[in-house]
Amino acid sequence: MGETATLASFVSQLALDDVPDDVVADATLAIRDYVGVALYGSAHEVGERVWRYADRAFGRGPATAFGRGTTTPTGAALANGAFGHAVDYDDTFDSIVIHPTSPVFAATLAASQARREESMTPEVTGRDVLAAYVAGCEAAFRVGHATYPSHYDNGWHATGTVGAFGAAAAAASVLDLDAETTRRAFGVVASCSSALKTNFGTGTKPLHAGHAAAVGVRAARLAEEGLTADPDVLEGDIGYGAVMTVGDDGYDPTAVTEGLGETWAVTDIGFKPYPSGVITHAAMDGMRDLVAEHDLTPETVERVVVTLDEAADEMLIHADADTELEAKFSIEFCLAAVLREGDAGVREFTDGYVRAPETRAAMDLVERDFEENALGGDFAGYGARVRVETVDGETHVAEEPHAPGGPDNPVLPERLREKYDKCARAVLSPEAVDAVAEAVEGLTESPSAAALRAGEDALSTLLRGVAPDAGYRLASADDLDAVEGKPGTRRDLSTALGVDGVNVNIVTLAPGERLSGNAYHRHPTQTELYYVLSGEIAVETEDGGETLAADEAAAFDPGAPHLLHNVAETEARVLAVGTPADGRYPTERLCGHESFRSEEN
Amino acid sequence: MGETATLASFVSQLALDDVPDDVVADATLAIRDYVGVALYGSAHEVGERVWRYADRAFGRGPATAFGRGTTTPTGAALANGAFGHAVDYDDTFDSIVIHPTSPVFAATLAASQARREESMTPEVTGRDVLAAYVAGCEAAFRVGHATYPSHYDNGWHATGTVGAFGAAAAAASVLDLDAETTRRAFGVVASCSSALKTNFGTGTKPLHAGHAAAVGVRAARLAEEGLTADPDVLEGDIGYGAVMTVGDDGYDPTAVTEGLGETWAVTDIGFKPYPSGVITHAAMDGMRDLVAEHDLTPETVERVVVTLDEAADEMLIHADADTELEAKFSIEFCLAAVLREGDAGVREFTDGYVRAPETRAAMDLVERDFEENALGGDFAGYGARVRVETVDGETHVAEEPHAPGGPDNPVLPERLREKYDKCARAVLSPEAVDAVAEAVEGLTESPSAAALRAGEDALSTLLRGVAPDAGYRLASADDLDAVEGKPGTRRDLSTALGVDGVNVNIVTLAPGERLSGNAYHRHPTQTELYYVLSGEIAVETEDGGETLAADEAAAFDPGAPHLLHNVAETEARVLAVGTPADGRYPTERLCGHESFRSEEN
Repeated sequence: MGETATLASFVSQLALDDVPDDVVADATLAIRDYVGVALYGSAHEVGERVWRYADRAFGRGPATAFGRGTTTPTGAALANGAFGHAVDYDDTFDSIVIHPTSPVFAATLAASQARREESMTPEVTGRDVLAAYVAGCEAAFRVGHATYPSHYDNGWHATGTVGAFGAAAAAASVLDLDAETTRRAFGVVASCSSALKTNFGTGTKPLHAGHAAAVGVRAARLAEEGLTADPDVLEGDIGYGAVMTVGDDGYDPTAVTEGLGETWAVTDIGFKPYPSGVITHAAMDGMRDLVAEHDLTPETVERVVVTLDEAADEMLIHADADTELEAKFSIEFCLAAVLREGDAGVREFTDGYVRAPETRAAMDLVERDFEENALGGDFAGYGARVRVETVDGETHVAEEPHAPGGPDNPVLPERLREKYDKCARAVLSPEAVDAVAEAVEGLTESPSAAALRAGEDALSTLLRGVAPDAGYRLASADDLDAVEGKPGTRRDLSTALGVDGVNVNIVTLAPGERLSGNAYHRHPTQTELYYVLSGEIAVETEDGGETLAADEAAAFDPGAPHLLHNVAETEARVLAVGTPADGRYPTERLCGHESFRSEEN
Repeated sequence: MGETATLASFVSQLALDDVPDDVVADATLAIRDYVGVALYGSAHEVGERVWRYADRAFGRGPATAFGRGTTTPTGAALANGAFGHAVDYDDTFDSIVIHPTSPVFAATLAASQARREESMTPEVTGRDVLAAYVAGCEAAFRVGHATYPSHYDNGWHATGTVGAFGAAAAAASVLDLDAETTRRAFGVVASCSSALKTNFGTGTKPLHAGHAAAVGVRAARLAEEGLTADPDVLEGDIGYGAVMTVGDDGYDPTAVTEGLGETWAVTDIGFKPYPSGVITHAAMDGMRDLVAEHDLTPETVERVVVTLDEAADEMLIHADADTELEAKFSIEFCLAAVLREGDAGVREFTDGYVRAPETRAAMDLVERDFEENALGGDFAGYGARVRVETVDGETHVAEEPHAPGGPDNPVLPERLREKYDKCARAVLSPEAVDAVAEAVEGLTESPSAAALRAGEDALSTLLRGVAPDAGYRLASADDLDAVEGKPGTRRDLSTALGVDGVNVNIVTLAPGERLSGNAYHRHPTQTELYYVLSGEIAVETEDGGETLAADEAAAFDPGAPHLLHNVAETEARVLAVGTPADGRYPTERLCGHESFRSEEN
């Protein structure tokens, strides 16, 4: 069996019972960390832009874009993947440069909501969601290792490319696809996997994670629909492994299969304690310890010298950072923020905080010092030494050989919870923050659909934010002003009530009056339903007319010409329901059945 | 200025007045050819699968998937791109192996419908659509040449990868993006451009064209939203040109810019006269001529010998073709079909026709003969010689040094119209086939939005098929059976009227009756609007209650707990509108405001 088939078989069979408890615990931690970061990202500029697009490009649906609103599963995968990577604060496989959870969990959740939408039975449970996430991480990790480092070195951003395999695997698992269908899902996703490092430093970098999640879900669903694809897509001279790497040894197929089911990718996940480049983290941890131990403040400090391996010089390109983005690569800012606050999180990494005079003054205290083979030459550990000289003439030194976050220097669970809280509170109320955390932590205890619903309720109703009002509005039709410039007296109930998914109008027609003047009209994409409230209405169509009394109704398909006419001698009232709401325009007025002209307005 | 900036500047400024008339005529021909092929593809198995996915994954919207239905612009781009390439019958740049119109025009149309949706002014005209298509072809052609042949040889399907640049350019043009925004659109699309040749021979190959169209539209719209990206994405060591080719000379930036605005990619477009591999076409044309000239039939023919260059042997892998797909690479089938029918089109390339005994008998008459350097060694021309020996002892020979379709042997306009007709009639009525052709041919005469609307009406209302019924239905609420198992007497008007985008129910509540038993309820994703038809209804929420009389209304956001209660001593009737329609479930009943349980059903 080739490696594509082996991986697909593993993914299609994995159940949470097969996964060791400590791996499940790590998975839960990673998902919560991701949810926090994605919530924060949803309110970030990149999140705003991606959501504005997704909100326009996808219709309403059963899935949730964190902190934003409901959309289709593909739209949610795109948005949530991008939200997770928006500020580069999401988790990383320690051994390869891939952020796994943004693409993989965004796809897991979207596929789960897609499955719910279609009322598949049995419904997906919390344990299914966790198993899918673990399987997705495994696929991303293994295809990542099989193509690393050639793929990354050649200009690809593996979070986006290889992440799509992880997303496809997770979606295939949630959708309960068999091994043969999962193989085809891999075939499809291989042809949609893309992300270029040349877009680093731009908003397109976070998009990569969203793209990966979206094409992963799409591939699984297309495979489910029977779309054919190369069932051995990783293999061969023009397979994914060969095309995405350079040279004969670029692709190592054994990395896909070796130890499958025995080792677990999830245990390789490291977490970022700070929303800045990983090269700044050891120094920030050192500073954090010194501030806590010696009650340091900018006022009591004379000078801070940070020593890093000389290889770090080219990463820390913003000594004089002036923006949030630059601050991520400014050791001066990072240490100044920790000196001021004792810690640094999303609240500090903002343009305003970076530019504050107090911050600038603290940055002036920091000197960078690069040494060849600093800290024993283990640059891979991203270590640092921080020396603080106080105004009182004291000197304090902290040395951290490994950046915190990875398996060699893990972040303590309580710091991860703090990170989650700070991120999530940027968007949610404290109660909602707790409810979401509980929902994630409870996934493993959710063997039933009903229990998961409660969890998902937190992950959907709460995450998109509680509306600022009470969640309802009242209106009286008679109190509304009539819409001007329209035949009949039209009152727009849906607008008055803040309902945006459907048009609901109350139309009053005087005796003899026609709803669209003297002309037939039609809506190219909107279906209309008329319900007669009182009076009598003649519905005229190409086939003739029909008279409707109160409580009778008619519906017109998109494109069907129609005309409503009050044929009685009393006033008539009609309730009109049009859907989709944005399908009302253009309204085409037809002069007769054969020819028509567009309404000029 | 780098090549990305130069190309973006060209695309953003191109107007149809800058394009020579003969180029515009070629463009119109290409679009009509594409529309015919895409209509046919919409009914094909691959079209069916892609549409089933798109219909589920995207919501309803203002755009049209040919022959299928309405969807969002991105959904339409995905579907229409895939439809166009579904049977490999779409046009080709003669000098490079790229099918341009499926990705480029699918994106043009979708972006045009997106722009309409947002009521941008001035509205896009037919001439804008043509200019966008010409600009899109130019981008695909130039990025294609800059990366050819290294990119294609390395395993990439350029129709999908480079086609995405064409799609992004066309969408940017329709959306009237300026040069700087168009540069960012190229940056975004570079990170979403993918398609592997290893998926040739599967349904994922046509998907490539749809993927290219969809990511092209998405890139333009994300750039419009302000998403940042590398503004010089083609250039540089890890730019698109370098990453997508192999070796130092793989990428030729001059191909992007040389002669821009002077030569026109559209004139390089060739059309397939037959829905089979291009290697079969010269022989089929020869056979077609001989059949016409000598009134040949299978009964009057003893033997057919077809001579091709020996390099053709490995392409014609199905001497004994048994399916539509195999028939495309069977010279025996192709000549048998022409011998039987005098021509061969989509009606002949079906499993049924391939397997018919009369076809099998005619296939037995055909012998293949490969010669080294046949026809003067110009294998690039895909030429062929056909010799027919009749039962009467006559011998007829036809020789075609070039396959028909390209600039060296163009297909006559009347044959292209025939091809369009045969394709389109598989889906549309003869009247609609003509109307669509006229709409396409009239694009150049559509300087105004109103005129284009008429054209787009043909391209949307007609293309998605006229509903089999009259387009409307009537119902009386009182005649409907009540929905069982629900509190109140609930009559489902939307189901009775065949309206699927919204739930409309008429609910009658007896005095004292509550709409959801004794419990509050909420819908996680559905917005509900209640309109009181008669009686009095108390709306109870977490904030207390409010009583509504006839013609008063309330709306509840998703997730907002509510309860409706008939507090009067007379019957009450309420019209309930829920949207989206698929957001009704799950309905969560809440026992109180603090705790709730899921409804078990």
